Amino acid sequence: MTASKDIRTRAARLGPDDVRAAAARIAGDVVRTPTVRAFSLEREGGPELWLKCENLQRIGAFKARGAQHAIGRLDPSVRARGVITFSSGNHAQAVAWAARIHGVPATIAMPEDAPRIKVAGVRALGAQVVFAGTTSDERRAAALALHERTGAAIIQPFDDEDIVCGQGTATLELADDVEAATGRGLDAILVPVGGGGLVAGACLATRGRGIAIHAVEPAGCDAMARSLEQGQRVRVGPAPTLADGLKPVQVGELNFEIARTDLAGTHRVDDDELGLALVRLLVRAKLFVEPSGAAGLAVALRGLPRDARRIGVILTGGNADPTLVAALLERWGAEA
Amino acid sequence: MTASKDIRTRAARLGPDDVRAAAARIAGDVVRTPTVRAFSLEREGGPELWLKCENLQRIGAFKARGAQHAIGRLDPSVRARGVITFSSGNHAQAVAWAARIHGVPATIAMPEDAPRIKVAGVRALGAQVVFAGTTSDERRAAALALHERTGAAIIQPFDDEDIVCGQGTATLELADDVEAATGRGLDAILVPVGGGGLVAGACLATRGRGIAIHAVEPAGCDAMARSLEQGQRVRVGPAPTLADGLKPVQVGELNFEIARTDLAGTHRVDDDELGLALVRLLVRAKLFVEPSGAAGLAVALRGLPRDARRIGVILTGGNADPTLVAALLERWGAEA
Repeated sequence: MTASKDIRTRAARLGPDDVRAAAARIAGDVVRTPTVRAFSLEREGGPELWLKCENLQRIGAFKARGAQHAIGRLDPSVRARGVITFSSGNHAQAVAWAARIHGVPATIAMPEDAPRIKVAGVRALGAQVVFAGTTSDERRAAALALHERTGAAIIQPFDDEDIVCGQGTATLELADDVEAATGRGLDAILVPVGGGGLVAGACLATRGRGIAIHAVEPAGCDAMARSLEQGQRVRVGPAPTLADGLKPVQVGELNFEIARTDLAGTHRVDDDELGLALVRLLVRAKLFVEPSGAAGLAVALRGLPRDARRIGVILTGGNADPTLVAALLERWGAEA
Repeated sequence: MTASKDIRTRAARLGPDDVRAAAARIAGDVVRTPTVRAFSLEREGGPELWLKCENLQRIGAFKARGAQHAIGRLDPSVRARGVITFSSGNHAQAVAWAARIHGVPATIAMPEDAPRIKVAGVRALGAQVVFAGTTSDERRAAALALHERTGAAIIQPFDDEDIVCGQGTATLELADDVEAATGRGLDAILVPVGGGGLVAGACLATRGRGIAIHAVEPAGCDAMARSLEQGQRVRVGPAPTLADGLKPVQVGELNFEIARTDLAGTHRVDDDELGLALVRLLVRAKLFVEPSGAAGLAVALRGLPRDARRIGVILTGGNADPTLVAALLERWGAEA
């Protein structure tokens, strides 16, 4: 699959100014989440670790940023017809939440076997749920059909310029906060990758600042790493991972084009590393994250990226199942 | 027990300026912890809830503030002889940590049956541990003997002006942050009470600002409420509670004198309320607190204080046993 010239041109043209513009547009609606230094997770003589707490974001994940930005960027006459999406994860909640802020209806296409708690979650935010088969293709088809019928706008989960710039605002704040606190910039930032919206936004937000952006994926769900290795986007089969937020089978086209020019490295983490990182964040740093949200720290706990003296870690979200977290605490608490 | 006239005079004389001076002295050493609005814990149409995240403080609790302040206030020639304390909780870790910042030795008198993890905790911070019986009287006697022999200064856990002003800096930041964020002040702040250092500091920090300070104690460990009811300090027998940080049998003399003129109300919470509040903080607000740290929220979940439209809640600390938290998640996760 070769990217169109148009996508390459856009990937090259976008930059920090676009992310700053997105930040200005969504300020006051999303939370400017805290950046905290994790003294309790640092090794003696090791690098400083700075955590960007997107688990403290509205709806418990950074996805609120992109959804709020993308819906805000719609033409008002289009937006008035409502919005649709077909994610069943944090993006679904983010779209439901942002639609409510904008006062427009939201419809979420979910699988027939979606966990009740997720269905209840988007309904509690005022969104309508339509059930459509069990595969992502079926959900996407249902969303398209709805779009054709109602004219409601589809809010893409990650492969979209407005989403990417919205998600990039998290990294912008992290980089700015650490610079303000220390007088020096971060050397590197660890970013969990599913479809690549957050990491593409991280690249854009920091272009020209000398900060190395590193992607982190679950082992087996390494669509970005494999795509970069092969020089083109590849699909990976669904693989089991604790990090249910990082499972897309293919990264976004725009996101890949940005990543291929900007990314400094990629890392794969396994479930044991994710579990231990999650529990250390809880017990030491006192922050509750979902497994996907612990992926960046899992890499830092390996002592990577090497030679970085000041590392930023994006804690992407905190929407974890309490029973799972209880089990992980039992399993890893003594080693935390 | 009647307070000396001297104590009453001091209680009346102290105020926000003393707390601001303490804040200036400890700035850069302690963390200016985030104040976050807990949208996910608010009821539709209910008051705003603002959380002061002292679980994200150095050593995981607000006690770092008072210890750092009190040790910093010692005459350098006295401080050079080292410091001693006899708490086995967060204050012990705080003194060990602050002594290291000041480059002086710390000795902690602990019970012979102290949990290994607490002993290891203060040793990891470079403090020396001396074991002294199993009661608090024995530990206090050991500390006094050590003071006589070495001249090292005793750092009181709560009944001390420098400790009170140091702890008050947490409330000062909370009140300032909410005012800066909203343009309006808090109506009330919920403060967990053990020996009363934090709540006395909260009273001082907010004098003249029209913010109602409310004390929260575990049922059965209600030394402050009973003392206020009787008009003098009374001792309460040790009672079982999840909130092991809120068990002192008597509040401080200075603290009581401040509280009796300034406190707007007192509240008692039981273990079920503490457990549910702790789990809601975890699952909804994404913050890991110890049971004591959840006491303020437990009162807010009752809809108190009535008529307050903007409530501050101090999350005092996050040093909870992972196994206990896992059990509470299992017990309350479904209701969170």
